[in-house]
Amino acid sequence: MRAVVMHAPGDVRVENVQNPTIIEPTDAIIRVTAACICGSDLWPYRGIEDVAGPTQMGHEYIGVVEQIGDHVEQVKVGDLVVGSFVASDNTCEICQAGFQSRCIHQVMMGAIGTQAEYARIPLADGTLVVVPGEPTEAQQRSLLAASDVLGTGWFAAVAADAGPGKTVAVVGDGAVGLLGVLAAKRLGAERIIAMSRHADRQALARRFGATDIVTERGDAGVARIKELTGGYGAHSTIEAVGTQESMMQAIGATRPGGHVGYVGVSHGVELDGMDLFFATVNLLGGPAPVRRFLPELVELIMSDQIDPGVVFDLTLPLDEAADGYRAMDERRATKVLLTL
Amino acid sequence: MRAVVMHAPGDVRVENVQNPTIIEPTDAIIRVTAACICGSDLWPYRGIEDVAGPTQMGHEYIGVVEQIGDHVEQVKVGDLVVGSFVASDNTCEICQAGFQSRCIHQVMMGAIGTQAEYARIPLADGTLVVVPGEPTEAQQRSLLAASDVLGTGWFAAVAADAGPGKTVAVVGDGAVGLLGVLAAKRLGAERIIAMSRHADRQALARRFGATDIVTERGDAGVARIKELTGGYGAHSTIEAVGTQESMMQAIGATRPGGHVGYVGVSHGVELDGMDLFFATVNLLGGPAPVRRFLPELVELIMSDQIDPGVVFDLTLPLDEAADGYRAMDERRATKVLLTL
Repeated sequence: MRAVVMHAPGDVRVENVQNPTIIEPTDAIIRVTAACICGSDLWPYRGIEDVAGPTQMGHEYIGVVEQIGDHVEQVKVGDLVVGSFVASDNTCEICQAGFQSRCIHQVMMGAIGTQAEYARIPLADGTLVVVPGEPTEAQQRSLLAASDVLGTGWFAAVAADAGPGKTVAVVGDGAVGLLGVLAAKRLGAERIIAMSRHADRQALARRFGATDIVTERGDAGVARIKELTGGYGAHSTIEAVGTQESMMQAIGATRPGGHVGYVGVSHGVELDGMDLFFATVNLLGGPAPVRRFLPELVELIMSDQIDPGVVFDLTLPLDEAADGYRAMDERRATKVLLTL
Repeated sequence: MRAVVMHAPGDVRVENVQNPTIIEPTDAIIRVTAACICGSDLWPYRGIEDVAGPTQMGHEYIGVVEQIGDHVEQVKVGDLVVGSFVASDNTCEICQAGFQSRCIHQVMMGAIGTQAEYARIPLADGTLVVVPGEPTEAQQRSLLAASDVLGTGWFAAVAADAGPGKTVAVVGDGAVGLLGVLAAKRLGAERIIAMSRHADRQALARRFGATDIVTERGDAGVARIKELTGGYGAHSTIEAVGTQESMMQAIGATRPGGHVGYVGVSHGVELDGMDLFFATVNLLGGPAPVRRFLPELVELIMSDQIDPGVVFDLTLPLDEAADGYRAMDERRATKVLLTL
């Protein structure tokens, strides 16, 4: 089958690789119908994370079940399914508490690679959610977004305690940050401040529910958020970048007793204990337990209540994945969808 | 009046200083009836924090109102009162959200010094809670504990989300950690694991409600907590030390999705962003908003439902404060009460 393989930073190729097979009786094999390139795929692409030899890429997917292992009971051949970037049993205490991304049996889908014609899905019963009916093309794009960027933005908004009466600040205007805006809006936030310098992303943030745009960054950004919130800071802040500057901006923008939901994969971040102590904010973040939210997200998408798929601003066939990586690296695209 | 003054690390003296006076119309002057020495007073005593010249010490107190400013309405001369180590207006949005320790008008009582015959209490209406009736000597000791160590342990337990069905781990066996055990018990925790190597403190932890004692520290301590919790880790962990080791022990002992309430004043702590990201725990800490809990704590104490005052294992007259500092520094005493 064809699959996207990263050989080194900046070197992405579509190659023929072996088809996946059932390894565990809890596995399923899906025919991927759409995949995408994630902001986090740019870390190795840019050489910030190591690339240990040729590596199959991708961890977001929708697809049709082709084959199931002997112990799979909840999905059947022919089902259209969506799953998150972490395979999880959905039965352990961690999963049951809603943290499926840290399931004691977790398998990172990035280690498998879903930018490919087929993918093995471990723990299929716990991981996959069956999509009812026949989604339109727009709904399919939104379902693919649910697999990671929507689910991650949603978790960030929940972790930040976004809700009625709250002012939510969003640090990061990539797909996750933008969908954090959408999530905060759906969760009932009163005011949503998107931090962005790009006109097209500002427009999308407003479409998703942002009430204010702040273009300043760092200390100036923090000062502006305080100014907009009577000197107190935001109740809830979504951090969707993962750098030292963005984390400090998020923590600084949040009032004491407020909540920071951080989902940008952390790179080079060091938090000073004393600063954190006197910030006195609630911090919750990490790999998003997308699986917790998937059933609800699928329902919202299939009933056209949300349209997260509009974050995809470039669609390419799988064979042109290298162009997609380049476009995201050069910020010519926010989020690239790969068709199969 | 007589007051405790620190001149340099290890150099604590009781000296005559000027009596405090009303400065702001929202001030009250109290005659301190009991004060105490805090674990955090040991940081400068040990030279870990700077001592910028002679400094009046102390931030915990109960006392009788001697004089009030023109705008004080909630307390009157003659009232027996208790307050926290942070003076707060109790009306700003931060206070109203329960984070009085970060009130926008906050005044740290440590900058005033309550190990003294008299103390000025800023924002008296917001800061002080009137004690009803006539407390016994034991109740007076408990009220003094409420001023900081009990209130701080209580906040840590609340921040750690201790409650029914939860397993709570407590890192730190000082007064705050021990009273964190008491708080977790009152909040309904199912299992409380105290981490301590000292027989007397283990005994007090058990008296306050600890069900298990773990003597291991660091990675071995984390491994033991995991072993005791089916491999998952604690639901809730109280951190009451403030060092790198204790923070990592607390975070490591907590299951993904669990909560860490950290109240040990942070010294030399650096949290690695990536470690934190993959820990995926809720973190909340900082200077405890003791004022939030004081009315409830006063009621629990005056009805003899809790006896936090037993953490005081050495009582000295104010004039012998230097001996008290020495005893705590040498760990001969957990918590020293100063009588006046």
